[in-house]
Amino acid sequence: MADSAENQVFIGKKGVMSYVLAVVTQFNTGVKEVTVKARGKAISRAVDVTEIVRHRFLADTKVKDISISTEELSSDGGESNRVSAIEITLSR
Amino acid sequence: MADSAENQVFIGKKGVMSYVLAVVTQFNTGVKEVTVKARGKAISRAVDVTEIVRHRFLADTKVKDISISTEELSSDGGESNRVSAIEITLSR
Repeated sequence: MADSAENQVFIGKKGVMSYVLAVVTQFNTGVKEVTVKARGKAISRAVDVTEIVRHRFLADTKVKDISISTEELSSDGGESNRVSAIEITLSR
Repeated sequence: MADSAENQVFIGKKGVMSYVLAVVTQFNTGVKEVTVKARGKAISRAVDVTEIVRHRFLADTKVKDISISTEELSSDGGESNRVSAIEITLSR
């Protein structure tokens, strides 16, 4: 399964449909909101996941909020890298 | 230069800084809003461009709106492909 915390699905390197399934599964537990999160190149995939969920699986879901930010990741060597991030909140 | 229509910057395959420059240049003509648009894998780059513009170049710009959608692209063979798209409106 895709990584998922409480009402959250974090998009990584798996196929898009793994994450679509994770989002749909969370909604099927009865929650009203699920947040799709991604960093760096996975941001495009987060948008794909959101679009597939609302157009093909759960037509009653809406994009409630989208926010973007910059996160600082520290590597093992102590250097820090900045990476863009997105959070898409879906509600039904 | 990066492709740019009126108050719009369309993100393609060039380096991030080409598009950052395009956005900053548009703001410097005096417009109050610039929309950054991207499709498919370029979506991540659109977020990078936005974050770099507002954190490193124009600190007075704000993300006014972010919308995502699905666009249908028809190929030469008459087939159609769906691709996710994003529009990020920056204002100052």
